[in-house]
Amino acid sequence: MQTLGQTARQAASLLSKASTRQKNAALNAIAGQLRANETALLAANTRDVESGRNNALDAALLDRLELNTGRVAQMADGLQQIAGLADPVGEISDMNFRPSGIQVGKMRVPLGVIGIIYESRPNVTADAAALCLKSGNAVILRGGSEAIHSNLAIAKCIATGLEEAGLPAGCIQLINTTDRAAVGELIRLSGFVDIIIPRGGKGLIERISGEATIPVIKHLDGICHVYIDAQADPRKAIDVAYNAKARRYGICGAMETLLVNQAVAPEVLPELFKQYTKKGIELRVCERTQNLFSDNSGLITATEKDWQTEYLAAILSIKIVDDLDEAIAHINSWGSHHTDSIVTQDISAANRFMREVDSSSVMLNASTQFADGFEYGLGAEIGISTDKLHVRGPVGLEGLTCQKYVVVGDGHIRP
Amino acid sequence: MQTLGQTARQAASLLSKASTRQKNAALNAIAGQLRANETALLAANTRDVESGRNNALDAALLDRLELNTGRVAQMADGLQQIAGLADPVGEISDMNFRPSGIQVGKMRVPLGVIGIIYESRPNVTADAAALCLKSGNAVILRGGSEAIHSNLAIAKCIATGLEEAGLPAGCIQLINTTDRAAVGELIRLSGFVDIIIPRGGKGLIERISGEATIPVIKHLDGICHVYIDAQADPRKAIDVAYNAKARRYGICGAMETLLVNQAVAPEVLPELFKQYTKKGIELRVCERTQNLFSDNSGLITATEKDWQTEYLAAILSIKIVDDLDEAIAHINSWGSHHTDSIVTQDISAANRFMREVDSSSVMLNASTQFADGFEYGLGAEIGISTDKLHVRGPVGLEGLTCQKYVVVGDGHIRP
Repeated sequence: MQTLGQTARQAASLLSKASTRQKNAALNAIAGQLRANETALLAANTRDVESGRNNALDAALLDRLELNTGRVAQMADGLQQIAGLADPVGEISDMNFRPSGIQVGKMRVPLGVIGIIYESRPNVTADAAALCLKSGNAVILRGGSEAIHSNLAIAKCIATGLEEAGLPAGCIQLINTTDRAAVGELIRLSGFVDIIIPRGGKGLIERISGEATIPVIKHLDGICHVYIDAQADPRKAIDVAYNAKARRYGICGAMETLLVNQAVAPEVLPELFKQYTKKGIELRVCERTQNLFSDNSGLITATEKDWQTEYLAAILSIKIVDDLDEAIAHINSWGSHHTDSIVTQDISAANRFMREVDSSSVMLNASTQFADGFEYGLGAEIGISTDKLHVRGPVGLEGLTCQKYVVVGDGHIRP
Repeated sequence: MQTLGQTARQAASLLSKASTRQKNAALNAIAGQLRANETALLAANTRDVESGRNNALDAALLDRLELNTGRVAQMADGLQQIAGLADPVGEISDMNFRPSGIQVGKMRVPLGVIGIIYESRPNVTADAAALCLKSGNAVILRGGSEAIHSNLAIAKCIATGLEEAGLPAGCIQLINTTDRAAVGELIRLSGFVDIIIPRGGKGLIERISGEATIPVIKHLDGICHVYIDAQADPRKAIDVAYNAKARRYGICGAMETLLVNQAVAPEVLPELFKQYTKKGIELRVCERTQNLFSDNSGLITATEKDWQTEYLAAILSIKIVDDLDEAIAHINSWGSHHTDSIVTQDISAANRFMREVDSSSVMLNASTQFADGFEYGLGAEIGISTDKLHVRGPVGLEGLTCQKYVVVGDGHIRP
């Protein structure tokens, strides 16, 4: 691991100076390699999937593990998309003259070496590598052991692509052992690795954060809320609340709890119930919600556990609240500081919600499912940070960089 | 400590919503309290200084510990200056329409609760408290045990000032015990404290960073360089290199090593030697520098240790380098990623230096002594970060905040 770290550190130094043209050439070359080696990739993947079946992995995990022609093409497309994004490195901003006569501004530069630890999806190998490469960072990748053959095959394409573009192989290294001790070493490689980004379930992320001696950018769970305010437009409220849950269940920006102001609950909830039920969504509701319906026999009573659960499934918890204060307090205490939305026409309520809800994204009259790097204009993302330091929300190329100060004088000395 | 943490967390929630007017009122009220209670402050300080003398503290430490009429006035002035700075909280930037029709931007918000651990200077109690208050963060302060009576007296003024402005005392809390175990508890108060900022010597900062389970903003040493390039203007080179060392020795932006391109060494070094020697600065030089002078009897030979030492004193190490590459490599491997400057008229050399030197501030034709929050236009600073994550360089009000995403739609749902 020490050797891996040293190699990465050296490569990072070269990569930080690489031109945009050269980095893009590497990204396109890797994409070409993936397309050209589809047969080999699928063969390697078949080995993983078969041993996964033999080890009785569950269906969802096997699905995440599987590659096919479409998914290989998606990986290659993803690399080319990242080649098309603007290069964040070297951008100089806020350059201003100071009273002393010096000019002071900021220059965006890579972080250095990034360690990424992820689970079964082999496409992460290509996606994460591409984001790190474009942002000028060397990366050490550690994928799930169940995807080792797929990852090695992808890594081979990456190495060839880097070579074609004249960049050192040390820019993107894959840990080629499934030994779990390697993760423990990686997250303690201070001096060689600047930041660790775990991608995967809550369990993985909590374990990594607890043990790492290197700073970690965390993406914990997404317990997202929509709050329908007393002054909400009922049509927008129903559209947003339905979309936030029903568009896709399995993404971290999916709403898990719907909060409804008591004043509008009788107006919006019956229609929403109809829509959710038609879609097959299980509803777990507070007592006041139950009392709204004369026939509440099909309704499940929500418990405290529901307010703190990320279902990622066709389940929704619903609570009627007295007012905006109760909604904000509920979100800040039970939510996960990910993405929360208010539906209202009232400017004061909107302002208070946007300011006081302590989440990485706060939204007004918009579906929480918009929480996504592409939707925000950041391009591909490596995760969504629920941390407060360094970067909050979708982590794209900019989140993988930092800014140093640049000071320009003309022989200026400080009096 | 747990109770302290809970109180801070509650206060932080209130403080994050406090108006600029109210925060400024508190800062001005605290300044007024400091002025009004000068006698009590000086009496408390006398107790600390006397017990410091009895415990044989060294002169430098006793000097840092001491308050007098001027220093009390400075503290009060500092608070009023911070009241005069723009409030970073709530600032919305980069608000743009996306193709989907939603608007996406960023809002600057406080971090939450900050723990500050510092050494003997009692003025840090007021300075740090003021920066945290203005940036909307609650703070838990832990000063040096030798300054406990001074700090308690200042804390009393702070509490009264907060009360006058209608803000809870929990916004600014001082740990009122000198028990060392309290520091260990503070840096592990995850869930209550969001960030730890140690202020003081390298020993303190390394100990804190090594043991904290909460993210730490580090300011390690400032081994700053000036590199005089082959294409330097000799007049600017001499001015900048003299000022960078001689203006003040004890600040972290002071130059500790001077690198000189071989091509200009014979032109600039004799004059610089004259000036440094006249000022009483001890020179530790490489062999090539010694060979420049026929009478080199007074010159001390630099060793590897000199390249990695922050003297903070009237000592300077000097090295002649072959070229820009050697200068950049020397700075990146021996420096401390704090502040480094190139003197040159050559655009290509300047561009390479600015991009490739991996320091929190890179400078062109300017003295490293400009590395300072006020000089950069950030106002008062809580330290200078040599970290890469979250904030690099002088940490002012902005460094004590983060940005969350704000998304505004009008009933927008994601297709």
